[in-house]
Amino acid sequence: MPSAFATNMRFKLSILAIFLEVLIIVLFGIFVRYENSQSVTKDKLFLYPFFQDVHVMIFVGFGFLMTFLKKYGFSSVGINMLIAALGLQWGTLMQGFWHTEAQTINIDIKSMINADFSTATVLISFGAVLGKTSPVQMLIMTILEITIFSCNEHLVVNVLGATDTGASMTIHAFGAYFGLAAARVLYRPGLKEGHKNEESAYHSDMFAMIGTLFLWLFWPSFNSAIAQPDLQQRAIINTYFSMAACTLTAFALSSLVEHRGKLDMVHIQNATLAGGVAVGSCADMNIYPFGAMLIGSIAGLISVIGFKFLTPFFSSKLKIHDTCGVHNLHGLPGLLGGLASIVAAVAHIKLGETETPSAAMQAAALGCTIGIALVGGAFAGLVLHLPFLGQAPDENCYDDSVYWEVPTEETQPAGQFSDPGDHRTVNINV
Amino acid sequence: MPSAFATNMRFKLSILAIFLEVLIIVLFGIFVRYENSQSVTKDKLFLYPFFQDVHVMIFVGFGFLMTFLKKYGFSSVGINMLIAALGLQWGTLMQGFWHTEAQTINIDIKSMINADFSTATVLISFGAVLGKTSPVQMLIMTILEITIFSCNEHLVVNVLGATDTGASMTIHAFGAYFGLAAARVLYRPGLKEGHKNEESAYHSDMFAMIGTLFLWLFWPSFNSAIAQPDLQQRAIINTYFSMAACTLTAFALSSLVEHRGKLDMVHIQNATLAGGVAVGSCADMNIYPFGAMLIGSIAGLISVIGFKFLTPFFSSKLKIHDTCGVHNLHGLPGLLGGLASIVAAVAHIKLGETETPSAAMQAAALGCTIGIALVGGAFAGLVLHLPFLGQAPDENCYDDSVYWEVPTEETQPAGQFSDPGDHRTVNINV
Amino acid sequence: MPSAFATNMRFKLSILAIFLEVLIIVLFGIFVRYENSQSVTKDKLFLYPFFQDVHVMIFVGFGFLMTFLKKYGFSSVGINMLIAALGLQWGTLMQGFWHTEAQTINIDIKSMINADFSTATVLISFGAVLGKTSPVQMLIMTILEITIFSCNEHLVVNVLGATDTGASMTIHAFGAYFGLAAARVLYRPGLKEGHKNEESAYHSDMFAMIGTLFLWLFWPSFNSAIAQPDLQQRAIINTYFSMAACTLTAFALSSLVEHRGKLDMVHIQNATLAGGVAVGSCADMNIYPFGAMLIGSIAGLISVIGFKFLTPFFSSKLKIHDTCGVHNLHGLPGLLGGLASIVAAVAHIKLGETETPSAAMQAAALGCTIGIALVGGAFAGLVLHLPFLGQAPDENCYDDSVYWEVPTEETQPAGQFSDPGDHRTVNINV
Repeated sequence: MPSAFATNMRFKLSILAIFLEVLIIVLFGIFVRYENSQSVTKDKLFLYPFFQDVHVMIFVGFGFLMTFLKKYGFSSVGINMLIAALGLQWGTLMQGFWHTEAQTINIDIKSMINADFSTATVLISFGAVLGKTSPVQMLIMTILEITIFSCNEHLVVNVLGATDTGASMTIHAFGAYFGLAAARVLYRPGLKEGHKNEESAYHSDMFAMIGTLFLWLFWPSFNSAIAQPDLQQRAIINTYFSMAACTLTAFALSSLVEHRGKLDMVHIQNATLAGGVAVGSCADMNIYPFGAMLIGSIAGLISVIGFKFLTPFFSSKLKIHDTCGVHNLHGLPGLLGGLASIVAAVAHIKLGETETPSAAMQAAALGCTIGIALVGGAFAGLVLHLPFLGQAPDENCYDDSVYWEVPTEETQPAGQFSDPGDHRTVNINV
Repeated sequence: MPSAFATNMRFKLSILAIFLEVLIIVLFGIFVRYENSQSVTKDKLFLYPFFQDVHVMIFVGFGFLMTFLKKYGFSSVGINMLIAALGLQWGTLMQGFWHTEAQTINIDIKSMINADFSTATVLISFGAVLGKTSPVQMLIMTILEITIFSCNEHLVVNVLGATDTGASMTIHAFGAYFGLAAARVLYRPGLKEGHKNEESAYHSDMFAMIGTLFLWLFWPSFNSAIAQPDLQQRAIINTYFSMAACTLTAFALSSLVEHRGKLDMVHIQNATLAGGVAVGSCADMNIYPFGAMLIGSIAGLISVIGFKFLTPFFSSKLKIHDTCGVHNLHGLPGLLGGLASIVAAVAHIKLGETETPSAAMQAAALGCTIGIALVGGAFAGLVLHLPFLGQAPDENCYDDSVYWEVPTEETQPAGQFSDPGDHRTVNINV
Repeated sequence: MPSAFATNMRFKLSILAIFLEVLIIVLFGIFVRYENSQSVTKDKLFLYPFFQDVHVMIFVGFGFLMTFLKKYGFSSVGINMLIAALGLQWGTLMQGFWHTEAQTINIDIKSMINADFSTATVLISFGAVLGKTSPVQMLIMTILEITIFSCNEHLVVNVLGATDTGASMTIHAFGAYFGLAAARVLYRPGLKEGHKNEESAYHSDMFAMIGTLFLWLFWPSFNSAIAQPDLQQRAIINTYFSMAACTLTAFALSSLVEHRGKLDMVHIQNATLAGGVAVGSCADMNIYPFGAMLIGSIAGLISVIGFKFLTPFFSSKLKIHDTCGVHNLHGLPGLLGGLASIVAAVAHIKLGETETPSAAMQAAALGCTIGIALVGGAFAGLVLHLPFLGQAPDENCYDDSVYWEVPTEETQPAGQFSDPGDHRTVNINV
């Protein structure tokens, strides 16, 4: 039974993970050192609370945000952890190769923040293919995406000299369009009519709110962590107000687009975060608090509209099935963030005391980020499309029991009243 | 069908929220600026971890603490988020109008902490009316309560010159009595005999513990965030030991008041926090660690007693139905905190090196806080009593499905075995 | 009905808890003071974010990690809170008696971190006896274990002069072997064949992941909090990479040891943390990032193997039933950490700029820690074995309803479909 074999990860996952870990340890042994300890003072550790906020976002925020599916919580939070644990090690190496002038890659708190950042791109893309990929596929995608991300980041920041402190473009738009391109290549016609597991349950929506809130709360840290020290407070303030304004418009639009005026958890879980994405590129600019709120308000608005109208369109017409709607949370708001940075440059809004960004370079950064993401994502999709990487058959998508030991009495989701003829375990052909 | 119309929020919620956001953006455009960047140093960002702890308390702590109701988790954590997002913007304006001498309101980390603080009052009051109010009503209450809170805070701190670092009086007692007065005006005789949804389920109690623990853990940050820098450590220490002592007495009393000696989750979720409330006014005073523990112990004791004996009395005799028991968590311990500060003043306990608080001013602060809260809350209740603000009919109280899209298989709460004749959806008349 | 009486905690729990709190307040009144305020500067508060991370680990991390049992969530997170609240007060006194030279115990952030640390030992041991002990027993164990822990810590750090910054030995190995020895003495032959409640449910495993992730994320703070300031960054970096590497090998091994290649939540919840335990003793040493990753990789490996093969062996052959598998998460990795510190000493790996640890003293520290833990744990087990401390009868183990008011419709765990003849409440003889 080939499909049964296909999802058995016993040797594929273990051998690939151990191979990667051994490879990384060898590379670390050769290249990676502590930052010279003479320069380590309490001052350096000043960034440590920012790092920890970002760290919580990556593992708790992204992890729990994706637990909204009723039968896919183990995978969401578990594979998220696996991706991030691999990604931060690989990201340390990839960013180190570009960022360092010395013979060695030197680790300090800032490089740890950047390593965590690099994993965010993969976690965003993971949202687009959630429920339809195996852990082995995700390990491969992690390696591919972080490698390409690091090149694009180097290009945007160091070659073009664009500003993107909160990474609206280099992380959010990149991760979203990379994931969408991969999802396009991995499109499953068999899921065209939807899938019975692709829905939330009451408690899974509650778990997802844990993710939402920790992302929401610590986004000011995300957008300010690598800002220049004298601009960090401004980045914090702009993000704080952008998120608050975004939340109001997201609630308003969620109620407005539903004919009975009810709020939709999908919007509250996701669109309330769009303000953090969109204000990213301008976070440390002198856009005034009301400017940040304007960006946030628009972000909340377009994000809800995206969920309501664009996601179904993408799925039915473009054959892009975006499980978590990352296009609405990271893609569109990321584009908005890039556009805002171009507008800010045109308006000569200052970055520091004197510096102003260049509109042309901001536009180039946005363009090359989208382009590289799409091409890179399509390439990754082709690689993941290789057989024997453990994809679940269509009928077992969005189901933890394919890759996890699941407590038996809960194969049946809580509160669902079973058809007596449906008492089989879900993973019959595994 | 008028009741059906009443809870349809489609245009009311969206238009009110967008109107408020536009108004706020305009006011921010006119009045709000960044703090002068020349004075922004790393030193200023020293408060940022304190801010983030408070931020987590507001959104995760308060939000999840209220998820104990079995069918009201979306509203608890979602409307909490909406209130707080509006409140922090409005609080920035209201506090700025009182606090600033300049032409503009200048934002820094400290003003963000104060803005988050101002939302806490509304979230406390929200607990008193939880399950019985609409999102539209809560937006209106947010605007009203924060406006009145800011006036009272100005009166207490600047006019009377009282000390209330951890805000036992100005936030906790104020929020509780404001909410109780509003609940009295909004009293629903139809719920006199209780409501089938007004109870917890196993998992909803677990979610509530997430809220409890993050409140418990970060309370030292709450009580020290706006203390003078040289007194912050003392405020942290006092709160830490007060909470620990309170937890022991809360567990002890919970077991004692129940005839079979079993612990009650309501007490553990709430009364363990009373020590943080009660030590607030004295947090930065030289009361010694054992003094803080004494205050905390008494707070845990009176809080459990309040839940066991006072809440039923309030509900049956005073027509005040206090859903979350905020009187026991914030009201009584807030009073205790105010009284403790009066005793401390009488005992000439020092605040800083030389300063001592004035007993008369502490008493005046407590009195005017309670008075303004009661009058303000009653006024807010009258405003919220206006028709067409979307209140749910009695039978649909404590039920997310009135205002939220709820996953269908979970309209039936997890683990509840249904009467076959009860398969209707809950929100029939919506 | 004696067994009914046995679990009624009404007077036992309340009187013991209040007695302990009164005793502690008296001792605090006599001995405990604030650190001299003249030396309190912002610099001192530099450790506050580290403290808060550790604080979250103790209450949220340990508390939720143990909620994996389907019917024991209230006890896991609630009794964890009770133990920690008592433990941090008692730990302050016990450590203060050893650590101070002055007449008084002076409290600052560092002493609060150490107090939280001391509670960790009890919480680890709690994991070994989880579901089989009463709250009264746990209060007694808290007092006993922290007293013995403080003596051993004094011996290891001050007398032997060993280095154990992240406390692989003094906290993790100590807590594990103390708990295992107590579990041996408290062995219940009636549970030899397993217990129907000793298993997870889907949502309880999700709650447990909250604990796992907060432990995982803040472990770098745990291992660096009491390091010398100039070595804190190194301790952070080593722990960060050790945890990441451990996570990969834990996933790999989990998949490998299961014949269908599925991941097991028990491993993901626990073995991913072993890297933090194992790197503890060497955390601030110059072991290079790849050295930390090597230690972490081995820790993840042995931890999964321990869960798969050693725990069943312990239970069936050694009559040690270790509910949470603390031997695999804290015992074995703690031993590994101690051994690594011996190896590092032999290899002359530097601690600071010049200092090197002594292999003999590291070995002596490891040996005396295990020895004292085993003897102390066995003694504690004998004390807890006294009758009338409220143990549940075998059939009611792992069941919240013995000690807690549990919502009625959820006595039946979510999603479990009941045998119609099984509609009795679980706690019939209580």
